[in-house]
Amino acid sequence: MSELRWYGWGNAAKTFSLEHRPGAWDFLRAALDLSGDESFLPCDFNSIRLRAPRLSDEQLRALRNLTAPSAVKIDAMTRVMHAYGKSYRDLIRLRRGDIPNPPDAVVFPSNEVEVAQIISFCAQNDVTLIPFGGGSSVVGGVEPRDERLTISLDLARLNRVVSVDEISQTATIEAGILGPDLERELNARGLTLGHLPQSFEFSTLGGWIATRGAGLTSTGYGKIEAMTQSVRVVTPHGVIETKNVPATAAGSSILQMIVGSEGTLGVITQATMRVRALPKTKKYQALLFKSFADGVAAIRAMVQSDIVPTTVRLSDEAETKSFFAMREESQGWKAFTERIGLQFLNSMGYSFENGALLILGVEGDSASRIMSAAQAVCKSQSAFSIGEGIAQSWMRDRYETPYLREVLLDRGVLTDTLETATTWDNLDRLHKAFLQAIADATASTESKSLVMTHVSHCYRDGASLYVTFLARMAQKKEIEQWETIKRAATDCIMTNGGTLSHHHGVGYEHAAWMQRENGKVGMDALKALKSALDPKNVMNPGKWLEAEHSMVGLAMEYQERFWNIP
Amino acid sequence: MSELRWYGWGNAAKTFSLEHRPGAWDFLRAALDLSGDESFLPCDFNSIRLRAPRLSDEQLRALRNLTAPSAVKIDAMTRVMHAYGKSYRDLIRLRRGDIPNPPDAVVFPSNEVEVAQIISFCAQNDVTLIPFGGGSSVVGGVEPRDERLTISLDLARLNRVVSVDEISQTATIEAGILGPDLERELNARGLTLGHLPQSFEFSTLGGWIATRGAGLTSTGYGKIEAMTQSVRVVTPHGVIETKNVPATAAGSSILQMIVGSEGTLGVITQATMRVRALPKTKKYQALLFKSFADGVAAIRAMVQSDIVPTTVRLSDEAETKSFFAMREESQGWKAFTERIGLQFLNSMGYSFENGALLILGVEGDSASRIMSAAQAVCKSQSAFSIGEGIAQSWMRDRYETPYLREVLLDRGVLTDTLETATTWDNLDRLHKAFLQAIADATASTESKSLVMTHVSHCYRDGASLYVTFLARMAQKKEIEQWETIKRAATDCIMTNGGTLSHHHGVGYEHAAWMQRENGKVGMDALKALKSALDPKNVMNPGKWLEAEHSMVGLAMEYQERFWNIP
Repeated sequence: MSELRWYGWGNAAKTFSLEHRPGAWDFLRAALDLSGDESFLPCDFNSIRLRAPRLSDEQLRALRNLTAPSAVKIDAMTRVMHAYGKSYRDLIRLRRGDIPNPPDAVVFPSNEVEVAQIISFCAQNDVTLIPFGGGSSVVGGVEPRDERLTISLDLARLNRVVSVDEISQTATIEAGILGPDLERELNARGLTLGHLPQSFEFSTLGGWIATRGAGLTSTGYGKIEAMTQSVRVVTPHGVIETKNVPATAAGSSILQMIVGSEGTLGVITQATMRVRALPKTKKYQALLFKSFADGVAAIRAMVQSDIVPTTVRLSDEAETKSFFAMREESQGWKAFTERIGLQFLNSMGYSFENGALLILGVEGDSASRIMSAAQAVCKSQSAFSIGEGIAQSWMRDRYETPYLREVLLDRGVLTDTLETATTWDNLDRLHKAFLQAIADATASTESKSLVMTHVSHCYRDGASLYVTFLARMAQKKEIEQWETIKRAATDCIMTNGGTLSHHHGVGYEHAAWMQRENGKVGMDALKALKSALDPKNVMNPGKWLEAEHSMVGLAMEYQERFWNIP
Repeated sequence: MSELRWYGWGNAAKTFSLEHRPGAWDFLRAALDLSGDESFLPCDFNSIRLRAPRLSDEQLRALRNLTAPSAVKIDAMTRVMHAYGKSYRDLIRLRRGDIPNPPDAVVFPSNEVEVAQIISFCAQNDVTLIPFGGGSSVVGGVEPRDERLTISLDLARLNRVVSVDEISQTATIEAGILGPDLERELNARGLTLGHLPQSFEFSTLGGWIATRGAGLTSTGYGKIEAMTQSVRVVTPHGVIETKNVPATAAGSSILQMIVGSEGTLGVITQATMRVRALPKTKKYQALLFKSFADGVAAIRAMVQSDIVPTTVRLSDEAETKSFFAMREESQGWKAFTERIGLQFLNSMGYSFENGALLILGVEGDSASRIMSAAQAVCKSQSAFSIGEGIAQSWMRDRYETPYLREVLLDRGVLTDTLETATTWDNLDRLHKAFLQAIADATASTESKSLVMTHVSHCYRDGASLYVTFLARMAQKKEIEQWETIKRAATDCIMTNGGTLSHHHGVGYEHAAWMQRENGKVGMDALKALKSALDPKNVMNPGKWLEAEHSMVGLAMEYQERFWNIP
């Protein structure tokens, strides 16, 4: 763990260099009204005064007996690194050294029996348990939110590919495996899962399933709930193992109750996943539309006529403009502009200022055919093909962007993302509404906003919208500022027909809106499920089922205190 | 309702003629050791002594006030037609006039408010309520199984297409609509749902959703759970409405708890369904493989390489043999045999006695390309194309086969179907195991069996297996004989890695195996859900959640009594 950045994303030694992006800072400075003197640097780790672990010696001994002496950690670094996920609020608190409620211990079980025993220990000792995969939650999914003693259960050692069924193209895999390890093992057998979220390097199979995640190839390969054939989950009430079958009509779906349960019902220990042959061919292409609306029309026409690319990522005008303003001065880019000429593009009505960039990726034996068909649909919406190079540079950088967030935080820039999904007929309305909501809320915090959106997961009936927003940090009110914006954006999504989350999940930060999403009767159903499987509320308490613990009250208080919003 | 057959399937005036199938009876007589004198004819309806409705005049008045005087029926015909579904046991009991526990009334609400009021009435009056769509359940899904008074809630009047969103390709439709009405309304707008179960003409949208059904185009278009974007369901605890979004990560899936709930949690009143453009092109093809195993290899190779036909139906050797032995002497068939010559086929190693028939259907703009690719895969497994004619005759007859069951019952032939799904690697093992189990169990009832299987729903990771079994009826022990076979087959499926049901559902007849399917902890989760939404157990009691009411005990008793099986 020591190589990871304790106060933020990824490997400590790695950063996102803006060196070869000459326009980036000028663009951001202008867009966000930065003076250039802003900064928000992490505190010295050694200055953090962490509450001592509250487990008794006897309890620690018992835990060590259940696992192994080295599997129970109570050192400050391990506890800090399991105290939060990676949401904006998390990063702010880490940089400040503000960690009032860390887990009392972090336990690393090596098998399912140990998981079951640790759950029993917790139930008997009135200790809460938080399943921890990669800790990449951006919605407060792994943070202790309870006054009881808390153990963070790190599943890193449950990381084996248990078996592969090459006939059925499935693989049974332990939940704690990280993305790169999972793909390496499958690739060695000519297979892939094809679930590639931005957190891929630092997130786990169990985490993907627990949060109903989606990866960048989800348009072609589906969300994690479509990839999951069956799960094993240890609940305080016992083990649930769903059947390894392709489909069933044997009642309500228990599998789909576990997928998305976010550690609140039990610990997912393994899953059987639908895998596929590693594609031999991959095709990428970038296209420029005259408007986001044209691009949306094209990708809708594609998927509704069964032309389904593996990856679709359509940026709105603001994101397209930022992408090009902050672009790397690469050889590929130079070659492109010299070949085509920006003036020529402009004369044809295309613009990097007001256009919409589409990245398409198609994998598999039919990649060429599908890519041709997809491009034909795009061209019927007047798209201009700007080549493979730009698409490939985006693919290459796709796991790097989270490091940029650290650079921006260093320089005093708030940056966060949120996401939703809606039907095609509602997409434009929802998009316009939250752009306005975020801009207004940011303005109320006396900052200018930069709000960028893309569509990255397409379905026949709709798509997700993924939003990145930036602003100058409100000094000393960083979290209050963020909550003001987050609350306005989420309220707006709920009012305008979006879902609370398409793939980040609920955690603590979205819990206040769960009842608006599911209704009171739906919530009562979820609570009944929770009570049956976890009667003592051991598992990840204070998360999606308990709105009363959540941020709405806080945010309102902050708003009144700081921004005088009625 | 009067035009429907009260004691069995479909329209009373309609039958399945064997007149133009000269080989059919000879084949069956030989296969089943029939003397030709067997018969099992329905009783005279007027001879049925039906228990009087037990609702008081006051209760009937209250119900009529909640709906309309004509919406509350207590006549014998209506009550008989709502007493059972269409399982073998149901048809036997109907023909015998053995209907000891009919519903006390059948109520036809005209809107969701009335549904809610009727549910309240039931909860207040200790009356149970059974949602009734088309009544085509073959697993005892709509039969009163409770000693309390019972109302059958026929949703026939909730049959409107509420709205169509042509942009998102979704349609919001009331649950009681029948298949033909639904398709007619969608087709008029250039759209289709594409859910075509064999029961299509006599089953409803709500029933499809409540039972997790699948239609014959499910390989291409998916099962009903994939087609359902959202539902509205009235439970005794209140209304649940899931969101109209293409996907979500907002916790466990409430939608997928409702899909498959079989009326035990509440009444589905409407759903928003994913629809698609009506395909302009449809291609059909029949192919003959040298063996079922070759055919399975071919269809697996197809779907795993993203060549996905809309319809796939691969018969095993026994079903292929029966299909041809009982075929119609059509012009198409004559032309085929004259053109190709059966001897020539045989000399090439193909046989209707030992081969495997595959029906392929592909719909949509890419039909020709996909059909070519699918045929190429088949030919790499040595399939011989036997033309469109046979495929089209199967398509034409696909809703007629249930009428054949009535003809066979008339002549004293037990005939029933069951179905499961499993992974590709387990398909052969499971298939062989249940063939043996059904043959052995039938033999133990002193009859010969004819057991035929096809694969009709393919997934990347597996497929369904659909089994038809026939035997000479055991006189006066018709139900006991059937239970012996059904129990052996289902035990075998559960022991050999199949799911309890792929698309028929659970109802009463599969309830005894639900715990084996889902485990005790899984069942406790389902029971918690039930208790939260239906605390008084008003909704369709005695079905999938209540194994103690189920047939295992009965069947064991029958076995001991009649067949002396230890």
